[in-house]
Amino acid sequence: MTVKVGINGYGTVGKRIADAVSQQDDMEVIGVAKRSPTYEAEMAAEKGYPFYAASDKYMDDFEKKNIPVEGMLEDLLEKADIIVDGTPKKAGYKPIYEKAGVKALWQGGEDHELTGLSFNSMANYDEAYGADYLRVVSCNTTGLLRTLYPLHQKVGIDNCKAVMVRRGADPWDTSRGPINSIDPVLNIPSHHGPDVKSVVPEIDIQTTAVKVPSTIMHLHSVIVELEKEVDTQKVIDIWDETPRIKFFEASQGVKSTAMVMEWAKDRNNLRGDINEIAVWKDAVKVEGSTLYYYQAIHQESDIVPENIDAIRAMCKVEKDNEKSIQMTNDAMGIE
Amino acid sequence: MTVKVGINGYGTVGKRIADAVSQQDDMEVIGVAKRSPTYEAEMAAEKGYPFYAASDKYMDDFEKKNIPVEGMLEDLLEKADIIVDGTPKKAGYKPIYEKAGVKALWQGGEDHELTGLSFNSMANYDEAYGADYLRVVSCNTTGLLRTLYPLHQKVGIDNCKAVMVRRGADPWDTSRGPINSIDPVLNIPSHHGPDVKSVVPEIDIQTTAVKVPSTIMHLHSVIVELEKEVDTQKVIDIWDETPRIKFFEASQGVKSTAMVMEWAKDRNNLRGDINEIAVWKDAVKVEGSTLYYYQAIHQESDIVPENIDAIRAMCKVEKDNEKSIQMTNDAMGIE
Amino acid sequence: MTVKVGINGYGTVGKRIADAVSQQDDMEVIGVAKRSPTYEAEMAAEKGYPFYAASDKYMDDFEKKNIPVEGMLEDLLEKADIIVDGTPKKAGYKPIYEKAGVKALWQGGEDHELTGLSFNSMANYDEAYGADYLRVVSCNTTGLLRTLYPLHQKVGIDNCKAVMVRRGADPWDTSRGPINSIDPVLNIPSHHGPDVKSVVPEIDIQTTAVKVPSTIMHLHSVIVELEKEVDTQKVIDIWDETPRIKFFEASQGVKSTAMVMEWAKDRNNLRGDINEIAVWKDAVKVEGSTLYYYQAIHQESDIVPENIDAIRAMCKVEKDNEKSIQMTNDAMGIE
Amino acid sequence: MTVKVGINGYGTVGKRIADAVSQQDDMEVIGVAKRSPTYEAEMAAEKGYPFYAASDKYMDDFEKKNIPVEGMLEDLLEKADIIVDGTPKKAGYKPIYEKAGVKALWQGGEDHELTGLSFNSMANYDEAYGADYLRVVSCNTTGLLRTLYPLHQKVGIDNCKAVMVRRGADPWDTSRGPINSIDPVLNIPSHHGPDVKSVVPEIDIQTTAVKVPSTIMHLHSVIVELEKEVDTQKVIDIWDETPRIKFFEASQGVKSTAMVMEWAKDRNNLRGDINEIAVWKDAVKVEGSTLYYYQAIHQESDIVPENIDAIRAMCKVEKDNEKSIQMTNDAMGIE
Repeated sequence: MTVKVGINGYGTVGKRIADAVSQQDDMEVIGVAKRSPTYEAEMAAEKGYPFYAASDKYMDDFEKKNIPVEGMLEDLLEKADIIVDGTPKKAGYKPIYEKAGVKALWQGGEDHELTGLSFNSMANYDEAYGADYLRVVSCNTTGLLRTLYPLHQKVGIDNCKAVMVRRGADPWDTSRGPINSIDPVLNIPSHHGPDVKSVVPEIDIQTTAVKVPSTIMHLHSVIVELEKEVDTQKVIDIWDETPRIKFFEASQGVKSTAMVMEWAKDRNNLRGDINEIAVWKDAVKVEGSTLYYYQAIHQESDIVPENIDAIRAMCKVEKDNEKSIQMTNDAMGIE
Repeated sequence: MTVKVGINGYGTVGKRIADAVSQQDDMEVIGVAKRSPTYEAEMAAEKGYPFYAASDKYMDDFEKKNIPVEGMLEDLLEKADIIVDGTPKKAGYKPIYEKAGVKALWQGGEDHELTGLSFNSMANYDEAYGADYLRVVSCNTTGLLRTLYPLHQKVGIDNCKAVMVRRGADPWDTSRGPINSIDPVLNIPSHHGPDVKSVVPEIDIQTTAVKVPSTIMHLHSVIVELEKEVDTQKVIDIWDETPRIKFFEASQGVKSTAMVMEWAKDRNNLRGDINEIAVWKDAVKVEGSTLYYYQAIHQESDIVPENIDAIRAMCKVEKDNEKSIQMTNDAMGIE
Repeated sequence: MTVKVGINGYGTVGKRIADAVSQQDDMEVIGVAKRSPTYEAEMAAEKGYPFYAASDKYMDDFEKKNIPVEGMLEDLLEKADIIVDGTPKKAGYKPIYEKAGVKALWQGGEDHELTGLSFNSMANYDEAYGADYLRVVSCNTTGLLRTLYPLHQKVGIDNCKAVMVRRGADPWDTSRGPINSIDPVLNIPSHHGPDVKSVVPEIDIQTTAVKVPSTIMHLHSVIVELEKEVDTQKVIDIWDETPRIKFFEASQGVKSTAMVMEWAKDRNNLRGDINEIAVWKDAVKVEGSTLYYYQAIHQESDIVPENIDAIRAMCKVEKDNEKSIQMTNDAMGIE
Repeated sequence: MTVKVGINGYGTVGKRIADAVSQQDDMEVIGVAKRSPTYEAEMAAEKGYPFYAASDKYMDDFEKKNIPVEGMLEDLLEKADIIVDGTPKKAGYKPIYEKAGVKALWQGGEDHELTGLSFNSMANYDEAYGADYLRVVSCNTTGLLRTLYPLHQKVGIDNCKAVMVRRGADPWDTSRGPINSIDPVLNIPSHHGPDVKSVVPEIDIQTTAVKVPSTIMHLHSVIVELEKEVDTQKVIDIWDETPRIKFFEASQGVKSTAMVMEWAKDRNNLRGDINEIAVWKDAVKVEGSTLYYYQAIHQESDIVPENIDAIRAMCKVEKDNEKSIQMTNDAMGIE
């Protein structure tokens, strides 16, 4: 069976998921829906993704730019087995999907309550098996789960504190700041801790966050009280066996988020993305039972492979999360 | 007695300390020494600070710019009761001060070992009384001590974890980056924890640090395990009574380091500095015995009043640290 | 006669003009009006500026913060001889001022058409004498007029091309970007050229503009075809005699907008502002009849002295623009 | 004949040229030389580029990282027909290449005098035919030549003024600033004008430059006095026919350098580069005989295809520059 995937919202997330879907053997992009006739709409057409209009507002413009429109969003919903929603947060399409009787998954901008099921490939794939609706948690929460979940399983976590140093805007988004400021998220602890618990309630975690003038990657400083004393190498070994974690070392010249991005470009990753969570091996350190580490999160792309796994689980294509993860990774070139 | 203060190094720190000294009743600037003929040398002359050349390399330039040179650094050392060293870190002037038999204090760029005595006005003024040499700890360490020391005294600290989100460069320093990156300090825990302990060994603290593309203020996200449960108001009350801490609130429109700086400019603080540690009242929160807070540190100026207190202690002008702190604050307009 | 000045809008511009008015001998601030209860409202009260509410929306908050409210904006209009409008652009208060029968002046965010009279102290003070309404042109246009008008008068300008490299946001404004981008203003030539001509129609000028990730000062690269060949020194001499132009030199260490700001802070200018236009003397160069120069514009404050002069002209306090400029400069410490 | 190309210096430029060479049918990478064992050295090995040590300083590290070293730089020089020098500017390898009797080409960081021949594919390919040494001019100069040379040929240029708004550092270079400043290049006119003339002496051009806090692309604001009046469409038509110029339009959502970069990533260009010069079609405007336009230059990659053409010319593989340009473009996916 080849899953028929429709993408509603063809921006930062939507365009990446479309490409990732088309890299898989067991699913295909049967259409992407978008509101406005930007160059991305033109490129979707060039890439051979059937294009649907998410609104009739810009129909003339599509025509003027020679973007062939296959139909309206509603037509796409009818043909699709599942819809990946990449629209701006709280855009409110759920009733429309429900009416069309199509499965749907959302991104981390939505609240847990929208679907009652928050997803991470490693942690709760089984819960997603056959589900009609779910949300893939945000880039930051996905990043925390990638490194914390295996520690939770294999060592035990007593408590975790993490500070998220967040990029102020995506690279393309020139309207948002700050240009020269550090902005603390004053509502503390921040929402990221509860968000981790929406997937794995057993992990005791509190987070704070600050926004800084950078466009490339969030950086987390994480301190974990483990349930028992282990040595640093043990933690490194656990993460070495965990998919979608990638170690970097200062001796390679990779000392900053900018250098992680350069590495990803040099590796010719699609769009220069890095779907893995970047962890600095030099700075993983256990003292007693206290673990310190930094990780960097590519906000635009770490959740893309989780979306692919979620599609497989929801559409019952694969029962075993490890197999799905492996298939996704192989197809996308993820370590 | 009026203490005769000489300043060696008239840059970011030196110029601020010179102005702060000249605001006090019990000390005076008898001269500033500088190597190069920048506009700051011209301004020193305009402000009436006798100007000494720290090197003979630029003598012609001083003349060309009509900057009257009173003599060489050595001449200044001879006249001074005490020297404030504001030169670049590890500049190595100690033997010269020793030879001249003059008391001297350094800034936080130096190691504790240089003087064996690291200073904070609240925490260890008594140790500095009559001392010949000491260093005032760095801006970040001073900031941590300002908020942690009163908690240590009045509630008790079990452990503290702090993440320093550091500005990449001073506002005037256009050569240093990063422009668009987050750079973790990979040597963890960072040196700030041990630096706090160089003043108050009893405080158990571990820190990490990241560098970001901002020029105005460091921001700390601090999590403290207190020795007992207290309510949030108790912490606020303690800090309300503590000098050199200033609360800000989001409802006033102050939500970022940039807005703290704007407040300081609007208040017509000298150079737009804020000598106080800025704490967001909205984001002080105790859950059980865990305290969360953010504080912002004006890297160029928070250590200035500590330098003034250190002069008073070292030169035995005032025995009581609270009195010195009050005198300094009154003269400088600090809350 | 002491002119009774009311300020409507107490933000970036309004607060500066209030302080500048209160520095003058022949005018006084009889009240400032503001909508929201930010710290700036508190500070206005502390500074002794009678505070008026520009809307009744936040009345409870003013009370809660102990900000004494003298009355509503309408009450202020009744008492004032003239209103300085510092509200956001196109806020639309003109009918209200007209109804109150009070003179009013606006800032450069408004179109020329609002008042039919665009003002610069050097260029057309006489036209403003006794006027009921005018706008002081924008910071960039004011900057261009400061350096171009004396050349127009004393040498003659054949044509001028200027590129405005604009700061992306004001220092306090952390919501606006870009963080890492250069954004050309695609509507070319940009509006700054016509804006110069709204004051001096004889100057032939075309401009383009780009927005960059900086918060401190605009920078102009200007190329002028003069009507005749002169040597570089002649241009320098003309600007030396012109008020509100300040030369900087690389040999002083001032090579960037950041260093100009540092100079202004060191000079203890109010808020660290620089009301003068900063021109790099090293980079003024005439080749044949072509003049090249760079100038930096402090977007928040260069127009403040022009506002003061405009008040004097409109209220017929002083007939001679040179006398008004001198009075303003002396009171404000402008060179 | 397949040209044997060696690359000395495997950083920002070297790694890109290596990949571009290996995309061509008539040349091959026979080795890359590098000093230090960064991840780029590892990647070179993974890509199958024989790796040579440019110095014996890090031999142990290469071994430790399992980077197979084929030999020293000198060994590479012996085998190569031509060396592309991508070392830091003024690294001074010319005598070594001369001694080895190998052809060599340098980048724009070098002075014209090093080789006496400055190269651009469109403008002076014939001069490079069979040459032993040349330099490909800098990214900015290449960008200016791409748009100006066809105007010079087909319309005639009376004079050109261009302001270069330069990125402060490359994306990976986190050590360099400025973070929050605009830095004018005070030596005016800047070196870019003479650099254009080093290739096409007939073009009368003066330039100025400012450095800004961005890492992605330079932006030029260019004003050209044409020899005759033409309409805007004529200029657009000329550039449409010119290789390596790419139009963007605001209506596509591409309004900034950041969006140009996003486009290049979406197009899956290698490393997200854009070898073409980006010109905003909306902002090309002729008034009388005065042409205004903006162009953006990808500093890391626009010179890569010129390097390929230079190799072909120097090694006499192809006599006709248009054919070489076409071959290079086809192989690299350039429009």
